[in-house]
Amino acid sequence: MLSSLCDLLALISFAFPGQPQPPNRVPVNSPVVTPYAEASSKLSQHGLRELGAYSLLAELTGKIGARLSGSPQAAAAVEWGRKTMLAQGFANVHTEPVIVPHWVRGKIEQASMFTPELEGNTEQKLAICALGGSIGTPREGVTAEVVEVQSLEEARSLGERGKGKIVFFNRRFDPTLVNTFAAYGGAVDQRHGGASAAASSGAVGVLVRSMTMANDDEPHTGAMDYDANVPKIPAAALSAKAADALASRLKTGASVHVRLKLDCKTLPDVESANVVGELIGAEKPNEVIVIGGHLDSWDKGVGAHDDGAGCVQTLEALRLLNNAGLRPKRTIRVVLFMNEENGGAGGRAYAEKHRPDGERHIAAIESDSGGFAPRGFGVTAKPEVFARFVAWMPVLEPFGADKLMVGGGGSDVGPLAAQGAVTIGLEPESQRYFDYHHSNNDTLDKVNARELELGAIAIALLSYMIAEDGI
Amino acid sequence: MLSSLCDLLALISFAFPGQPQPPNRVPVNSPVVTPYAEASSKLSQHGLRELGAYSLLAELTGKIGARLSGSPQAAAAVEWGRKTMLAQGFANVHTEPVIVPHWVRGKIEQASMFTPELEGNTEQKLAICALGGSIGTPREGVTAEVVEVQSLEEARSLGERGKGKIVFFNRRFDPTLVNTFAAYGGAVDQRHGGASAAASSGAVGVLVRSMTMANDDEPHTGAMDYDANVPKIPAAALSAKAADALASRLKTGASVHVRLKLDCKTLPDVESANVVGELIGAEKPNEVIVIGGHLDSWDKGVGAHDDGAGCVQTLEALRLLNNAGLRPKRTIRVVLFMNEENGGAGGRAYAEKHRPDGERHIAAIESDSGGFAPRGFGVTAKPEVFARFVAWMPVLEPFGADKLMVGGGGSDVGPLAAQGAVTIGLEPESQRYFDYHHSNNDTLDKVNARELELGAIAIALLSYMIAEDGI
Repeated sequence: MLSSLCDLLALISFAFPGQPQPPNRVPVNSPVVTPYAEASSKLSQHGLRELGAYSLLAELTGKIGARLSGSPQAAAAVEWGRKTMLAQGFANVHTEPVIVPHWVRGKIEQASMFTPELEGNTEQKLAICALGGSIGTPREGVTAEVVEVQSLEEARSLGERGKGKIVFFNRRFDPTLVNTFAAYGGAVDQRHGGASAAASSGAVGVLVRSMTMANDDEPHTGAMDYDANVPKIPAAALSAKAADALASRLKTGASVHVRLKLDCKTLPDVESANVVGELIGAEKPNEVIVIGGHLDSWDKGVGAHDDGAGCVQTLEALRLLNNAGLRPKRTIRVVLFMNEENGGAGGRAYAEKHRPDGERHIAAIESDSGGFAPRGFGVTAKPEVFARFVAWMPVLEPFGADKLMVGGGGSDVGPLAAQGAVTIGLEPESQRYFDYHHSNNDTLDKVNARELELGAIAIALLSYMIAEDGI
Repeated sequence: MLSSLCDLLALISFAFPGQPQPPNRVPVNSPVVTPYAEASSKLSQHGLRELGAYSLLAELTGKIGARLSGSPQAAAAVEWGRKTMLAQGFANVHTEPVIVPHWVRGKIEQASMFTPELEGNTEQKLAICALGGSIGTPREGVTAEVVEVQSLEEARSLGERGKGKIVFFNRRFDPTLVNTFAAYGGAVDQRHGGASAAASSGAVGVLVRSMTMANDDEPHTGAMDYDANVPKIPAAALSAKAADALASRLKTGASVHVRLKLDCKTLPDVESANVVGELIGAEKPNEVIVIGGHLDSWDKGVGAHDDGAGCVQTLEALRLLNNAGLRPKRTIRVVLFMNEENGGAGGRAYAEKHRPDGERHIAAIESDSGGFAPRGFGVTAKPEVFARFVAWMPVLEPFGADKLMVGGGGSDVGPLAAQGAVTIGLEPESQRYFDYHHSNNDTLDKVNARELELGAIAIALLSYMIAEDGI
């Protein structure tokens, strides 16, 4: 069927004006015949006709919406995941308890800047949101002069100049990095560690430029952590435009003050759950390939790309395999992990509970980089195992998912590496992801149903090949 | 610089919770050192910092908007192109005359369906737009019973059953084709040839399901042609939802009539122009590599993806090369073609005017598949020439533009093939293109500035490598 698809592409070679490119492109490395041609055809025909991943995402984001760990919505998402797996006829559907933190944003998030030395200077509002895990401010807020820094090091070395101040971390994404995850990785230390770095110089609050490539007025939340040995101070994200406005005011040389009010807080831990279901392997059921995403999200937007996409892609992958009657030799198991965003408890709990006993995890595929068109997979494995993936990649070429990269899998499947599992991450096109990530912009309309489905098909095929051939 | 970029990616390997994938992916085929590492670094650093392609697109779509051949806006676009090239310091900036058709949509586009056998049946509006090149209806419109068909063949074989009817072409895009251009190629014969096929069976009008993967209420226009030997009848595109509504009504078995009014018409031909500017080759100035898109658009939306994107990407490619001081051995020439959408006169006129005299066109790169993240290039060349592209592709890997396909270039550069030019097409991610194509949805906000720029960088690099190494 793959070869006949290519034939079809070659046949259709009209050249009308108004038709930008004749659609007769045959990829140089397109597989003509592979042992997986029939599986590929079945999975993609059903997937692209039915677009099941998008239907599930519409349900999850429409009926439940945002689902931060510990919230009633997260509990509803667990129940939704369980019922969805049962409805699809997956085997051994169950939940596994996970103790998660319960941070709540509260209702007050306000910031404004002003310059006291200018008489009659009006306060200008700044678009902010609390960083996840932050303490709140006193009821009357924190008002202090702002000092801008570009790094944790600079904040730590402020010394006396940091005392009583609000420290403003303003290092941007490096736009010259093509992969936006690399740009994120180069900036996110400010969000995670900014508060404690500033507190070590006596600061009373922290504002962090949002982790985004976009230039808009939407603040992007995300996890932050406190060091045990310095005071906890409140921390908020500024929208990119608010960060620019604040930096621009500071450049005038005037002393700029910010009034910050947050009533977020951390409540006692809550019991939540991972959701698990599988296709039992026909020959080696105790060899397991995990596929999954995380069910929790931040409390902004509806967690469509992060990580509703990963949940529904892996649910859809198992549904497609199941409905196509492709019973794999080894077990393929969907795990919807809880609490990736602010703790990682679900990933740890799963690995802890499933220590090698009867079963052995040979591989784990995570989808947590958005529901955009797939580009390929990142794989963490020994060279001799890695070579298998080189051989499998051409089967994924028709879906644009054949780029193989060294290093793969996120924080949910990471703990399984210690048990010998090859960890793998779906790598979609990355340009738009951080425009939406952890913000009110992460909504269903940003997801293209076919792009999402192509990722599901790629996961189905790769997990099936691993399940058939072993590692 | 490429290798240091990879090093950087490898270094940044945080593993925070809340950070979906550690950004340390190193592509398996990433080039460590290539003769083009420095060019690649210069072009991409400037391109990604400055995002010049998007600025130009904002200008073209914001100041001028839609620019159908023959319209005052198309004339303004020619002047904009010329001034933009002069402002960038391109050499030999000039326009070359092109005679283009001048079709105008008019102000009246109405369609409604009703079932006369049901007393008191109210008319239900259908979202339509005239197909480009269609004649109008009489002032009172055309009202007739509707017959649904799936193909030109079926329309031609209607015979008496087609007489006096409105024929409704309702064959959808094949959703199982991964590349949406292939799906378009499999459906667009209905738009081009539907009217004459139906007229050969005596039909009085034609409605064609929009050429789109989307399921919305927006009609998509596009070119249609009349055969000389059958009467001309009016032709309109139905939105996907309107087509579904009409098909659903027909399924009830009732006789469904449509009232159709269009006042579009064709005016006398107009003189317009291609816009040309270049970087003169330092060693072999008479060997030319053309890069270009088409300056005209349909009169729906603002022609942002089709093909403002191709124009600004090729302008930006030359700007980047020029500003980086990368003087190529051979000439690289931007051509903004006029009239791709409804005639192809610009592509033909350029090839006609530039028959081999003093200069020789060795290659021509067209960008006319939208401004989405680049995937690679399609190339039409002899095998020994094609092999050169295999060698060049790894240089494009960091930009995700290294997929090489057999067959490339659209209708604007096609005529240069007869002169021995290798024709090449930029191949971006295709999933979203036909959601916007030829409709009011083709607007600037659908374009991501970095995705657009990555295509410009890829075109700059590929044209530079061809200019340096020859073919």
